[in-house]
Amino acid sequence: MEIKPVAYIHNDFKTKFAVPRQSGISDIPSTIVFEKEYCDENAVRGIEGFSHLWLIWGFSENIRESHSLTVRPPRLGGNVRLGVFATRSPFRPNNLGLSSVKLVKSEFKNGTLTLTVNGADLIDGTPIYDIKPYVKYSDCHENAVSGFADSEEFNILKVEIDNQLLNKLPKEKRQTLLTILENDPRPAYQNDSERVYGFEFAEFEIKFTVEGNTLKVKDIYAK
Amino acid sequence: MEIKPVAYIHNDFKTKFAVPRQSGISDIPSTIVFEKEYCDENAVRGIEGFSHLWLIWGFSENIRESHSLTVRPPRLGGNVRLGVFATRSPFRPNNLGLSSVKLVKSEFKNGTLTLTVNGADLIDGTPIYDIKPYVKYSDCHENAVSGFADSEEFNILKVEIDNQLLNKLPKEKRQTLLTILENDPRPAYQNDSERVYGFEFAEFEIKFTVEGNTLKVKDIYAK
Repeated sequence: MEIKPVAYIHNDFKTKFAVPRQSGISDIPSTIVFEKEYCDENAVRGIEGFSHLWLIWGFSENIRESHSLTVRPPRLGGNVRLGVFATRSPFRPNNLGLSSVKLVKSEFKNGTLTLTVNGADLIDGTPIYDIKPYVKYSDCHENAVSGFADSEEFNILKVEIDNQLLNKLPKEKRQTLLTILENDPRPAYQNDSERVYGFEFAEFEIKFTVEGNTLKVKDIYAK
Repeated sequence: MEIKPVAYIHNDFKTKFAVPRQSGISDIPSTIVFEKEYCDENAVRGIEGFSHLWLIWGFSENIRESHSLTVRPPRLGGNVRLGVFATRSPFRPNNLGLSSVKLVKSEFKNGTLTLTVNGADLIDGTPIYDIKPYVKYSDCHENAVSGFADSEEFNILKVEIDNQLLNKLPKEKRQTLLTILENDPRPAYQNDSERVYGFEFAEFEIKFTVEGNTLKVKDIYAK
């Protein structure tokens, strides 16, 4: 079956290392811009009645010809192999991602239809193949058991950063950066307290080290 | 992007009228049979740790060349037009469906890998493009607001059926049929107390009428 993007997402996550590991854990904003054929207010009529939306999207950076049937989830330290259908790994048949996001607003301006959403875990420029309203009675399973992916296992880092560095960012992006840093933007499986890690965020390069449970920001500069 | 089924679902829903309007509201069983290239126990290693799964699937009976940007949800009586991205309507760009189901068991036997799941709202033979574990902390939003699709609006019918008729079905399918009937299997927008409605369930044809809030089963016969 051939599928075509209905929209693309835009945000400050320029590489996968800045993206939260799962959707819904932050209030980091993104803008969804619809493709021309859907740029019509009617396409989203009634959407403000929903607090959350589902995005079905494409892992556009990960497309491979073939996939292994097993993957090593970062949450398990990278040493345990699980079936691809037992994980949310991006390396999967059909390269489809699924994320829930909070709807902030929809806007139709100058012929362009956009949705502002919070909490997406998609890299800037990711194609979106469908947008559906989140329906609580069928989508929210309060008694669900989530195997190795239960939330208790999340580790939040303590972040140390000089105000002088933080103030290099526009005001509205500072809290977003702190949230990303707390959620540990290191590549999976890496734990080297000497190493200076770096990632791209908005128009900036962010440099940091991690020792134990503390992340120290070493430098921030415009690219 | 080209996507290919990873599995097909099999159950007693032979037509869309028997299918519950949304996933997760029943314990009706289905079997997911993986395509040959995924028939390997490793593909689902660890999946038993999860109580629920997501299915991304194709509305295979609804494929149209083009779609309207608005649809008329049955829940609103069929008179109100909403944007396709504000509904879960099957008539949508890319024909992708999204459903959560309860995982009962996975089984690898005679070279075939299957998952037994409860609560699917997919017709027999529907292609599945991805299966992902349900992750409670990112997927379950207890405070979500779901516009017109809030559960309070569901209408459960009172079902009248002679035991003689019900006993024509194999024992294990009787409760399933009662659940389907309670959930009102009439085509959307129809409300004619004189009319005898019919639908296919398992290997049987079911005939019924609805007057007010009561559904009466008129006949059940093997096809």
